[in-house]
Amino acid sequence: MQTFRASITIMLRKAILDVQGKTVEHSLHSIGFENLTDVHIGKHVMLHVQADSRDAALAQVNDACKKLIANPVMEDYEIELTEVEAAGAGA
Amino acid sequence: MQTFRASITIMLRKAILDVQGKTVEHSLHSIGFENLTDVHIGKHVMLHVQADSRDAALAQVNDACKKLIANPVMEDYEIELTEVEAAGAGA
Repeated sequence: MQTFRASITIMLRKAILDVQGKTVEHSLHSIGFENLTDVHIGKHVMLHVQADSRDAALAQVNDACKKLIANPVMEDYEIELTEVEAAGAGA
Repeated sequence: MQTFRASITIMLRKAILDVQGKTVEHSLHSIGFENLTDVHIGKHVMLHVQADSRDAALAQVNDACKKLIANPVMEDYEIELTEVEAAGAGA
């Protein structure tokens, strides 16, 4: 078994109005950050996965995203996997 | 003036209990994803910055994070900058 750290970025699909992003953009402009535009706000999920291989880990995380973590109708997500060094290779 | 895309990841500080993460972890386990652990949930902000240099862009985004985008008391953030190709170099 290997342990991976998954870093998942979830953003609203392009076609869907990002109200939170628009609000933050407006607030930024009103306090003088005129040069910051096109603000989009999404979620970032980090977790650890135990799996036999990188592919198995990715499949599990992808499945979890579809079923619970993201809303595939409204959101797009990207998964990044990094292998975590086992601290004490006893197991 | 150059345009950069800033990708900001905001997570709760380690010392602060991530209730949302715990809840999602619990839900994942209850639908069979026993191998997913250590779930942390934060925010992901993407925006465009206009600035004279990479350093100036980073300084602006950092300032905006401190003042509005993140809560420096409770959250840590990481900024990643990518230069965006100018579409039509007229300006």
